[in-house]
Amino acid sequence: MNDDKTTMQELKNKMAQFVCERDWEQYHSPKNLSMTIAIEAAELMEKFQWLGVAESRKEIACNKKEIEEELADIFSGLLSFAYFYGIDLSNAFEHKMEKNEQKYPVKEVKGKGIKAINLCRKMYAKCKN
Amino acid sequence: MNDDKTTMQELKNKMAQFVCERDWEQYHSPKNLSMTIAIEAAELMEKFQWLGVAESRKEIACNKKEIEEELADIFSGLLSFAYFYGIDLSNAFEHKMEKNEQKYPVKEVKGKGIKAINLCRKMYAKCKN
Amino acid sequence: MNDDKTTMQELKNKMAQFVCERDWEQYHSPKNLSMTIAIEAAELMEKFQWLGVAESRKEIACNKKEIEEELADIFSGLLSFAYFYGIDLSNAFEHKMEKNEQKYPVKEVKGKGIKAINLCRKMYAKCKN
Amino acid sequence: MNDDKTTMQELKNKMAQFVCERDWEQYHSPKNLSMTIAIEAAELMEKFQWLGVAESRKEIACNKKEIEEELADIFSGLLSFAYFYGIDLSNAFEHKMEKNEQKYPVKEVKGKGIKAINLCRKMYAKCKN
Repeated sequence: MNDDKTTMQELKNKMAQFVCERDWEQYHSPKNLSMTIAIEAAELMEKFQWLGVAESRKEIACNKKEIEEELADIFSGLLSFAYFYGIDLSNAFEHKMEKNEQKYPVKEVKGKGIKAINLCRKMYAKCKN
Repeated sequence: MNDDKTTMQELKNKMAQFVCERDWEQYHSPKNLSMTIAIEAAELMEKFQWLGVAESRKEIACNKKEIEEELADIFSGLLSFAYFYGIDLSNAFEHKMEKNEQKYPVKEVKGKGIKAINLCRKMYAKCKN
Repeated sequence: MNDDKTTMQELKNKMAQFVCERDWEQYHSPKNLSMTIAIEAAELMEKFQWLGVAESRKEIACNKKEIEEELADIFSGLLSFAYFYGIDLSNAFEHKMEKNEQKYPVKEVKGKGIKAINLCRKMYAKCKN
Repeated sequence: MNDDKTTMQELKNKMAQFVCERDWEQYHSPKNLSMTIAIEAAELMEKFQWLGVAESRKEIACNKKEIEEELADIFSGLLSFAYFYGIDLSNAFEHKMEKNEQKYPVKEVKGKGIKAINLCRKMYAKCKN
Protein backbone atom coordinates (compact mmCIF):
# COMPACT_ATOMS: atom_id res chain seq x y z
CA MET A 1 0.00 0.00 0.00
CA ASN A 2 1.22 3.50 -0.74
CA ASP A 3 -0.24 6.98 -0.48
CA ASP A 4 -0.26 7.55 -4.25
CA LYS A 5 -2.70 4.79 -5.00
CA THR A 6 -4.46 3.82 -1.78
CA THR A 7 -7.92 5.19 -1.12
CA MET A 8 -9.22 5.92 2.36
CA GLN A 9 -11.87 3.23 1.93
CA GLU A 10 -9.22 0.58 1.32
CA LEU A 11 -7.46 1.64 4.51
CA LYS A 12 -10.68 1.63 6.51
CA ASN A 13 -11.55 -1.82 5.19
CA LYS A 14 -8.19 -3.22 6.12
CA MET A 15 -8.51 -1.85 9.62
CA ALA A 16 -12.05 -3.20 10.03
CA GLN A 17 -11.00 -6.63 8.84
CA PHE A 18 -8.30 -6.77 11.51
CA VAL A 19 -10.76 -5.79 14.22
CA CYS A 20 -13.60 -8.04 13.09
CA GLU A 21 -11.49 -11.17 12.62
CA ARG A 22 -10.70 -10.86 16.34
CA ASP A 23 -14.25 -10.02 17.48
CA TRP A 24 -12.94 -6.77 18.88
CA GLU A 25 -15.76 -4.51 17.66
CA GLN A 26 -17.23 -4.70 21.14
CA TYR A 27 -14.23 -2.81 22.55
CA HIS A 28 -14.18 -0.19 19.84
CA SER A 29 -16.75 2.12 21.39
CA PRO A 30 -16.30 5.80 20.54
CA LYS A 31 -15.21 6.48 24.12
CA ASN A 32 -12.51 3.82 23.99
CA LEU A 33 -11.32 4.79 20.52
CA SER A 34 -11.03 8.45 21.51
CA MET A 35 -8.77 7.31 24.37
CA THR A 36 -6.73 5.16 21.98
CA ILE A 37 -6.09 8.06 19.64
CA ALA A 38 -5.07 10.32 22.54
CA ILE A 39 -2.78 7.68 24.05
CA GLU A 40 -1.04 7.05 20.74
CA ALA A 41 -0.72 10.80 20.14
CA ALA A 42 1.03 11.10 23.50
CA GLU A 43 3.48 8.39 22.46
CA LEU A 44 4.34 10.45 19.39
CA MET A 45 4.86 13.55 21.57
CA GLU A 46 7.17 11.60 23.81
CA LYS A 47 9.71 11.45 20.97
CA PHE A 48 9.95 15.26 20.93
CA GLN A 49 9.26 16.09 24.59
CA TRP A 50 12.67 17.46 25.58
CA LEU A 51 13.78 18.67 22.16
CA GLY A 52 13.81 22.21 20.89
CA VAL A 53 11.50 22.89 17.98
CA ALA A 54 14.43 22.83 15.55
CA GLU A 55 15.99 19.69 17.01
CA SER A 56 12.68 17.90 16.58
CA ARG A 57 13.17 18.11 12.80
CA LYS A 58 16.54 16.37 13.02
CA GLU A 59 15.06 13.72 15.27
CA ILE A 60 12.93 12.43 12.41
CA ALA A 61 15.87 11.67 10.16
CA CYS A 62 17.46 9.81 13.01
CA ASN A 63 14.48 7.88 14.27
CA LYS A 64 12.13 7.54 11.32
CA LYS A 65 10.95 3.98 11.78
CA GLU A 66 9.70 4.48 15.34
CA ILE A 67 7.96 7.69 14.37
CA GLU A 68 6.24 5.99 11.44
CA GLU A 69 4.93 3.37 13.84
CA GLU A 70 3.50 5.99 16.18
CA LEU A 71 1.79 7.75 13.27
CA ALA A 72 0.40 4.40 12.10
CA ASP A 73 -1.04 3.75 15.56
CA ILE A 74 -2.81 7.11 15.63
CA PHE A 75 -4.07 6.52 12.09
CA SER A 76 -5.41 3.08 13.03
CA GLY A 77 -7.55 4.57 15.78
CA LEU A 78 -8.88 7.17 13.38
CA LEU A 79 -9.67 4.58 10.67
CA SER A 80 -11.44 2.32 13.14
CA PHE A 81 -13.52 5.20 14.48
CA ALA A 82 -14.46 6.27 10.95
CA TYR A 83 -15.31 2.73 9.82
CA PHE A 84 -17.46 1.69 12.76
CA TYR A 85 -19.33 4.98 13.11
CA GLY A 86 -19.95 5.68 9.46
CA ILE A 87 -17.78 8.73 9.02
CA ASP A 88 -16.34 9.72 5.66
CA LEU A 89 -12.98 11.17 6.67
CA SER A 90 -12.16 12.67 3.25
CA ASN A 91 -15.45 14.47 3.25
CA ALA A 92 -15.12 15.62 6.88
CA PHE A 93 -11.61 16.87 6.13
CA GLU A 94 -12.73 18.74 3.01
CA HIS A 95 -15.51 20.50 4.93
CA LYS A 96 -13.22 21.43 7.82
CA MET A 97 -10.66 22.86 5.41
CA GLU A 98 -13.33 25.07 3.86
CA LYS A 99 -14.11 26.40 7.32
CA ASN A 100 -10.42 26.95 8.06
CA GLU A 101 -9.95 28.78 4.77
CA GLN A 102 -12.64 31.25 5.76
CA LYS A 103 -11.31 31.58 9.30
CA TYR A 104 -7.75 32.24 8.14
CA PRO A 105 -7.93 34.06 4.78
CA VAL A 106 -4.59 34.02 2.94
CA LYS A 107 -4.53 37.79 2.54
CA GLU A 108 -4.93 38.40 6.23
CA VAL A 109 -2.59 35.78 7.62
CA LYS A 110 0.16 35.15 5.07
CA GLY A 111 3.63 35.66 6.49
CA LYS A 112 2.30 36.29 9.96
CA GLY A 113 1.84 32.76 11.02
CA ILE A 114 -0.58 31.03 13.30
CA LYS A 115 1.19 32.29 16.37
CA ALA A 116 1.00 35.93 15.49
CA ILE A 117 -2.59 35.61 14.43
CA ASN A 118 -4.10 33.55 17.18
CA LEU A 119 -2.10 35.12 19.94
CA CYS A 120 -2.63 38.64 18.76
CA ARG A 121 -6.32 38.11 18.39
CA LYS A 122 -6.87 36.42 21.69
CA MET A 123 -4.17 37.44 23.98
CA TYR A 124 -2.01 40.42 23.29
CA ALA A 125 -5.08 42.58 23.60
CA LYS A 126 -4.95 41.80 27.31
CA CYS A 127 -1.23 42.15 27.70
CA LYS A 128 0.82 45.32 27.49
CA ASN A 129 4.46 44.23 27.56
CA MET B 1 -13.89 14.34 -1.72
CA ASN B 2 -15.04 10.96 -0.42
CA ASP B 3 -13.34 7.92 1.06
CA ASP B 4 -14.24 5.66 -1.89
CA LYS B 5 -12.23 7.60 -4.42
CA THR B 6 -9.80 9.85 -2.58
CA THR B 7 -6.20 8.73 -2.24
CA MET B 8 -4.02 9.60 0.73
CA GLN B 9 -1.75 11.62 -1.55
CA GLU B 10 -4.63 13.85 -2.63
CA LEU B 11 -5.46 14.51 1.02
CA LYS B 12 -1.84 15.24 1.91
CA ASN B 13 -1.55 17.62 -1.03
CA LYS B 14 -4.67 19.51 -0.06
CA MET B 15 -3.38 19.90 3.48
CA ALA B 16 0.05 21.05 2.32
CA GLN B 17 -1.46 23.60 -0.02
CA PHE B 18 -3.41 25.14 2.85
CA VAL B 19 -0.29 25.38 5.00
CA CYS B 20 2.03 26.66 2.27
CA GLU B 21 -0.32 29.33 0.95
CA ARG B 22 -0.13 30.85 4.43
CA ASP B 23 3.64 30.40 4.92
CA TRP B 24 2.93 28.27 7.96
CA GLU B 25 5.46 25.51 7.25
CA GLN B 26 7.75 27.21 9.76
CA TYR B 27 5.32 26.39 12.58
CA HIS B 28 4.76 22.81 11.50
CA SER B 29 7.77 21.33 13.25
CA PRO B 30 7.35 17.71 14.36
CA LYS B 31 7.23 18.85 17.98
CA ASN B 32 4.42 21.30 17.32
CA LEU B 33 2.46 18.92 15.11
CA SER B 34 2.67 16.15 17.71
CA MET B 35 1.13 18.64 20.18
CA THR B 36 -1.58 19.54 17.67
CA ILE B 37 -2.60 15.94 17.18
CA ALA B 38 -2.72 15.36 20.95
CA ILE B 39 -4.72 18.54 21.58
CA GLU B 40 -7.27 17.65 18.90
CA ALA B 41 -7.50 14.08 20.22
CA ALA B 42 -8.33 15.50 23.66
CA GLU B 43 -11.12 17.56 22.13
CA LEU B 44 -12.59 14.38 20.69
CA MET B 45 -12.36 12.67 24.11
CA GLU B 46 -14.16 15.57 25.69
CA LYS B 47 -17.32 14.53 23.82
CA PHE B 48 -17.32 11.17 25.62
CA GLN B 49 -15.72 12.11 28.94
CA TRP B 50 -18.66 11.56 31.27
CA LEU B 51 -20.52 8.98 29.21
CA GLY B 52 -20.66 5.26 29.79
CA VAL B 53 -19.12 3.15 27.07
CA ALA B 54 -22.55 2.27 25.71
CA GLU B 55 -23.88 5.83 25.86
CA SER B 56 -20.91 6.98 23.84
CA ARG B 57 -22.31 5.08 20.86
CA LYS B 58 -25.60 6.94 21.08
CA GLU B 59 -23.78 10.24 21.38
CA ILE B 60 -22.51 9.91 17.82
CA ALA B 61 -25.95 9.74 16.29
CA CYS B 62 -26.90 12.82 18.25
CA ASN B 63 -23.83 14.89 17.68
CA LYS B 64 -22.32 13.69 14.43
CA LYS B 65 -21.28 16.97 12.87
CA GLU B 66 -19.15 18.11 15.81
CA ILE B 67 -17.51 14.71 16.06
CA GLU B 68 -16.69 14.75 12.35
CA GLU B 69 -14.98 18.10 12.84
CA GLU B 70 -12.86 16.77 15.69
CA LEU B 71 -11.83 13.76 13.61
CA ALA B 72 -10.98 16.09 10.71
CA ASP B 73 -8.76 18.17 12.99
CA ILE B 74 -6.82 15.13 14.17
CA PHE B 75 -6.54 13.93 10.56
CA SER B 76 -5.22 17.33 9.45
CA GLY B 77 -2.37 17.15 11.93
CA LEU B 78 -1.52 13.65 10.77
CA LEU B 79 -1.60 14.65 7.08
CA SER B 80 0.60 17.67 7.67
CA PHE B 81 3.13 15.62 9.62
CA ALA B 82 3.20 12.97 6.88
CA TYR B 83 3.52 15.52 4.07
CA PHE B 84 6.28 17.66 5.54
CA TYR B 85 8.37 14.81 6.91
CA GLY B 86 8.12 12.45 3.97
CA ILE B 87 6.09 9.69 5.55
CA ASP B 88 3.92 7.35 3.52
CA LEU B 89 1.02 6.74 5.90
CA SER B 90 -0.54 3.89 3.89
CA ASN B 91 2.76 2.11 3.90
CA ALA B 92 3.42 2.79 7.59
CA PHE B 93 -0.09 1.55 8.41
CA GLU B 94 0.34 -1.63 6.36
CA HIS B 95 3.62 -2.46 8.10
CA LYS B 96 2.19 -1.80 11.55
CA MET B 97 -0.79 -4.03 10.81
CA GLU B 98 1.53 -6.87 9.84
CA LYS B 99 3.25 -6.47 13.21
CA ASN B 100 -0.10 -6.40 15.02
CA GLU B 101 -1.27 -9.50 13.19
CA GLN B 102 1.73 -11.38 14.50
CA LYS B 103 1.37 -9.96 17.98
CA TYR B 104 -2.32 -10.86 18.20
CA PRO B 105 -2.88 -14.04 16.16
CA VAL B 106 -6.58 -14.65 15.42
CA LYS B 107 -6.52 -18.16 16.86
CA GLU B 108 -5.14 -17.01 20.16
CA VAL B 109 -7.21 -13.89 20.71
CA LYS B 110 -10.54 -14.37 18.95
CA GLY B 111 -13.51 -13.93 21.26
CA LYS B 112 -11.32 -13.01 24.19
CA GLY B 113 -10.83 -9.41 23.30
CA ILE B 114 -8.02 -6.97 23.80
CA LYS B 115 -8.84 -6.54 27.43
CA ALA B 116 -8.66 -10.17 28.33
CA ILE B 117 -5.45 -10.57 26.40
CA ASN B 118 -3.45 -7.55 27.38
CA LEU B 119 -4.61 -7.52 30.94
CA CYS B 120 -4.16 -11.21 31.45
CA ARG B 121 -0.72 -11.12 29.98
CA LYS B 122 0.53 -8.13 31.86
CA MET B 123 -1.45 -7.78 34.94
CA TYR B 124 -3.52 -10.59 36.27
CA ALA B 125 -0.36 -12.56 36.76
CA LYS B 126 0.37 -10.18 39.61
CA CYS B 127 -3.13 -10.11 41.00
CA LYS B 128 -4.94 -12.97 42.70
CA ASN B 129 -8.55 -11.90 43.04
CA MET C 1 5.82 12.28 53.44
CA ASN C 2 2.06 11.84 53.75
CA ASP C 3 -0.95 13.88 52.72
CA ASP C 4 -2.02 14.63 56.30
CA LYS C 5 1.07 16.62 57.17
CA THR C 6 2.80 17.59 53.94
CA THR C 7 2.27 21.09 52.59
CA MET C 8 2.30 21.92 48.90
CA GLN C 9 5.40 24.04 49.40
CA GLU C 10 7.34 21.09 50.80
CA LEU C 11 6.39 19.06 47.75
CA LYS C 12 7.34 21.84 45.36
CA ASN C 13 10.68 22.27 47.11
CA LYS C 14 11.47 18.58 46.89
CA MET C 15 10.69 18.58 43.19
CA ALA C 16 12.80 21.70 42.55
CA GLN C 17 15.75 20.25 44.42
CA PHE C 18 15.68 17.15 42.20
CA VAL C 19 15.61 19.27 39.06
CA CYS C 20 18.22 21.81 40.15
CA GLU C 21 20.75 19.26 41.41
CA ARG C 22 20.81 17.94 37.85
CA ASP C 23 20.87 21.35 36.10
CA TRP C 24 17.65 20.43 34.36
CA GLU C 25 15.86 23.78 34.80
CA GLN C 26 16.84 24.59 31.24
CA TYR C 27 14.59 21.79 29.94
CA HIS C 28 11.66 22.68 32.17
CA SER C 29 10.16 25.34 29.92
CA PRO C 30 6.38 25.72 30.21
CA LYS C 31 6.00 24.19 26.76
CA ASN C 32 7.99 21.10 27.67
CA LEU C 33 6.32 20.71 31.07
CA SER C 34 2.86 20.94 29.55
CA MET C 35 3.88 18.08 27.25
CA THR C 36 5.22 16.09 30.20
CA ILE C 37 1.95 16.38 32.10
CA ALA C 38 -0.05 15.34 29.03
CA ILE C 39 2.23 12.38 28.30
CA GLU C 40 2.02 11.13 31.88
CA ALA C 41 -1.76 11.61 31.88
CA ALA C 42 -1.94 9.41 28.79
CA GLU C 43 0.03 6.71 30.59
CA LEU C 44 -2.56 6.76 33.36
CA MET C 45 -5.37 6.47 30.79
CA GLU C 46 -3.66 3.49 29.25
CA LYS C 47 -4.43 1.50 32.39
CA PHE C 48 -8.17 1.98 31.82
CA GLN C 49 -8.32 2.17 28.04
CA TRP C 50 -10.23 -1.05 27.29
CA LEU C 51 -12.10 -1.34 30.58
CA GLY C 52 -15.72 -0.51 31.24
CA VAL C 53 -16.29 2.34 33.64
CA ALA C 54 -17.17 -0.10 36.41
CA GLU C 55 -14.24 -2.42 35.74
CA SER C 56 -11.89 0.53 36.01
CA ARG C 57 -12.72 0.71 39.73
CA LYS C 58 -11.68 -2.90 40.23
CA GLU C 59 -8.51 -2.33 38.30
CA ILE C 60 -7.20 -0.02 41.01
CA ALA C 61 -7.38 -2.65 43.73
CA CYS C 62 -5.52 -5.01 41.45
CA ASN C 63 -2.88 -2.68 40.17
CA LYS C 64 -2.44 0.03 42.78
CA LYS C 65 1.30 0.45 42.77
CA GLU C 66 1.57 1.15 39.04
CA ILE C 67 -1.31 3.58 39.21
CA GLU C 68 0.29 5.43 42.11
CA GLU C 69 3.43 5.82 40.01
CA GLU C 70 1.49 7.30 37.12
CA LEU C 71 -0.24 9.76 39.43
CA ALA C 72 3.12 10.69 40.95
CA ASP C 73 4.52 11.39 37.47
CA ILE C 74 1.65 13.71 36.61
CA PHE C 75 2.00 15.40 40.00
CA SER C 76 5.74 15.92 39.46
CA GLY C 77 5.10 17.79 36.25
CA LEU C 78 2.54 19.98 37.98
CA LEU C 79 4.84 20.70 40.93
CA SER C 80 7.73 21.60 38.67
CA PHE C 81 5.56 23.91 36.59
CA ALA C 82 4.23 25.61 39.74
CA TYR C 83 7.70 25.97 41.31
CA PHE C 84 9.54 27.38 38.33
CA TYR C 85 6.79 29.72 37.16
CA GLY C 86 5.74 31.08 40.53
CA ILE C 87 2.27 29.60 40.75
CA ASP C 88 0.55 28.94 44.07
CA LEU C 89 -1.41 25.80 43.29
CA SER C 90 -3.51 25.84 46.49
CA ASN C 91 -4.55 29.35 45.75
CA ALA C 92 -5.24 28.66 42.08
CA PHE C 93 -7.28 25.59 43.07
CA GLU C 94 -9.31 27.55 45.63
CA HIS C 95 -10.15 30.25 43.09
CA LYS C 96 -11.13 27.74 40.43
CA MET C 97 -13.38 25.92 42.90
CA GLU C 98 -15.18 29.16 43.68
CA LYS C 99 -15.81 29.58 39.97
CA ASN C 100 -17.03 26.00 39.66
CA GLU C 101 -19.36 26.41 42.62
CA GLN C 102 -21.03 29.31 40.87
CA LYS C 103 -21.13 27.51 37.54
CA TYR C 104 -22.71 24.38 39.05
CA PRO C 105 -24.89 25.43 42.01
CA VAL C 106 -25.81 22.49 44.26
CA LYS C 107 -29.53 23.19 44.02
CA GLU C 108 -29.53 23.10 40.28
CA VAL C 109 -27.29 20.12 39.67
CA LYS C 110 -27.59 17.75 42.64
CA GLY C 111 -28.58 14.24 41.61
CA LYS C 112 -28.48 15.08 37.93
CA GLY C 113 -24.81 14.71 37.43
CA ILE C 114 -22.31 16.38 35.19
CA LYS C 115 -23.47 14.40 32.23
CA ALA C 116 -27.09 15.37 32.45
CA ILE C 117 -26.18 18.98 33.01
CA ASN C 118 -23.51 19.59 30.45
CA LEU C 119 -25.07 17.47 27.80
CA CYS C 120 -28.54 18.84 28.30
CA ARG C 121 -27.29 22.37 28.21
CA LYS C 122 -25.11 22.02 25.18
CA MET C 123 -26.36 19.19 23.16
CA TYR C 124 -29.79 17.79 23.61
CA ALA C 125 -31.16 21.12 22.51
CA LYS C 126 -29.94 20.17 19.06
CA CYS C 127 -31.01 16.56 19.18
CA LYS C 128 -34.53 15.21 19.13
CA ASN C 129 -34.20 11.50 19.86
CA MET D 1 -5.43 28.65 50.86
CA ASN D 2 -1.75 28.93 49.98
CA ASP D 3 1.04 26.47 49.28
CA ASP D 4 3.01 27.41 52.41
CA LYS D 5 0.36 26.25 54.83
CA THR D 6 -2.04 24.01 52.99
CA THR D 7 -1.66 20.26 53.33
CA MET D 8 -2.55 17.81 50.59
CA GLN D 9 -5.29 16.36 52.78
CA GLU D 10 -7.00 19.75 53.07
CA LEU D 11 -6.98 20.07 49.29
CA LYS D 12 -8.31 16.54 48.79
CA ASN D 13 -11.08 17.19 51.31
CA LYS D 14 -12.12 20.39 49.61
CA MET D 15 -12.29 18.62 46.27
CA ALA D 16 -14.29 15.71 47.69
CA GLN D 17 -16.76 18.04 49.33
CA PHE D 18 -17.44 19.73 46.02
CA VAL D 19 -18.03 16.40 44.31
CA CYS D 20 -20.12 14.83 47.06
CA GLU D 21 -22.42 17.82 47.58
CA ARG D 22 -23.42 17.33 43.95
CA ASP D 23 -23.72 13.51 44.06
CA TRP D 24 -21.08 13.31 41.37
CA GLU D 25 -19.04 10.45 42.85
CA GLN D 26 -20.84 8.14 40.43
CA TYR D 27 -19.16 9.88 37.48
CA HIS D 28 -15.72 9.94 39.04
CA SER D 29 -14.65 6.47 37.99
CA PRO D 30 -10.91 6.03 37.48
CA LYS D 31 -11.50 5.74 33.75
CA ASN D 32 -13.38 9.02 33.58
CA LEU D 33 -10.96 10.85 35.87
CA SER D 34 -7.97 9.72 33.83
CA MET D 35 -9.72 11.25 30.79
CA THR D 36 -10.39 14.46 32.71
CA ILE D 37 -6.74 14.87 33.64
CA ALA D 38 -5.64 14.24 30.05
CA ILE D 39 -8.22 16.66 28.63
CA GLU D 40 -7.20 19.42 31.03
CA ALA D 41 -3.51 18.75 30.32
CA ALA D 42 -4.24 19.25 26.63
CA GLU D 43 -5.87 22.60 27.39
CA LEU D 44 -2.67 23.67 29.13
CA MET D 45 -0.60 22.56 26.11
CA GLU D 46 -2.82 24.58 23.83
CA LYS D 47 -1.42 27.75 25.39
CA PHE D 48 2.08 26.84 24.19
CA GLN D 49 1.30 24.90 21.03
CA TRP D 50 2.74 27.27 18.45
CA LEU D 51 5.35 28.93 20.63
CA GLY D 52 9.07 28.28 20.67
CA VAL D 53 10.40 26.83 23.89
CA ALA D 54 11.79 30.21 24.90
CA GLU D 55 8.66 32.14 23.98
CA SER D 56 6.63 29.82 26.17
CA ARG D 57 8.37 31.33 29.21
CA LYS D 58 7.28 34.81 28.22
CA GLU D 59 3.76 33.61 27.61
CA ILE D 60 3.30 32.93 31.32
CA ALA D 61 3.99 36.48 32.36
CA CYS D 62 1.49 37.64 29.81
CA ASN D 63 -1.25 35.15 30.44
CA LYS D 64 -0.85 34.01 34.04
CA LYS D 65 -4.44 33.86 35.16
CA GLU D 66 -5.60 31.53 32.38
CA ILE D 67 -2.61 29.28 32.93
CA GLU D 68 -3.34 29.10 36.65
CA GLU D 69 -6.85 27.97 35.84
CA GLU D 70 -5.62 25.20 33.58
CA LEU D 71 -3.20 24.00 36.26
CA ALA D 72 -6.03 24.09 38.82
CA ASP D 73 -8.20 21.94 36.55
CA ILE D 74 -5.50 19.31 36.17
CA PHE D 75 -4.88 19.42 39.91
CA SER D 76 -8.61 18.95 40.63
CA GLY D 77 -8.67 15.75 38.63
CA LEU D 78 -5.62 14.47 40.46
CA LEU D 79 -7.07 15.34 43.89
CA SER D 80 -10.37 13.68 43.11
CA PHE D 81 -8.64 10.53 41.89
CA ALA D 82 -6.48 10.42 45.01
CA TYR D 83 -9.40 11.04 47.37
CA PHE D 84 -11.85 8.51 45.94
CA TYR D 85 -9.33 5.74 45.36
CA GLY D 86 -7.40 6.05 48.59
CA ILE D 87 -4.08 7.24 47.23
CA ASP D 88 -1.63 9.25 49.32
CA LEU D 89 -0.13 11.55 46.70
CA SER D 90 2.69 12.86 48.92
CA ASN D 91 3.75 9.35 49.66
CA ALA D 92 3.45 8.21 46.04
CA PHE D 93 5.48 11.25 44.96
CA GLU D 94 8.20 10.59 47.54
CA HIS D 95 8.56 6.97 46.43
CA LYS D 96 8.67 7.89 42.75
CA MET D 97 11.37 10.50 43.45
CA GLU D 98 13.51 7.89 45.17
CA LYS D 99 13.23 5.75 42.06
CA ASN D 100 14.08 8.70 39.82
CA GLU D 101 17.11 9.56 41.97
CA GLN D 102 18.47 6.09 41.39
CA LYS D 103 17.62 6.14 37.71
CA TYR D 104 19.31 9.51 37.14
CA PRO D 105 22.22 9.79 39.60
CA VAL D 106 23.48 13.38 39.92
CA LYS D 107 27.06 12.42 39.12
CA GLU D 108 26.13 10.77 35.89
CA VAL D 109 23.61 13.25 34.54
CA LYS D 110 24.51 16.70 35.90
CA GLY D 111 25.01 19.28 33.17
CA LYS D 112 24.05 16.83 30.45
CA GLY D 113 20.33 17.17 30.74
CA ILE D 114 17.48 14.81 30.22
CA LYS D 115 17.75 15.13 26.50
CA ALA D 116 21.37 14.15 26.28
CA ILE D 117 20.81 11.27 28.64
CA ASN D 118 17.62 9.73 27.39
CA LEU D 119 18.35 10.27 23.77
CA CYS D 120 21.90 9.06 23.94
CA ARG D 121 20.89 5.98 25.84
CA LYS D 122 17.99 5.02 23.66
CA MET D 123 18.53 6.48 20.33
CA TYR D 124 21.88 7.72 19.20
CA ALA D 125 23.14 4.17 19.47
CA LYS D 126 21.03 3.46 16.42
CA CYS D 127 21.85 6.63 14.56
CA LYS D 128 25.20 7.61 13.06
CA ASN D 129 24.88 11.26 12.03
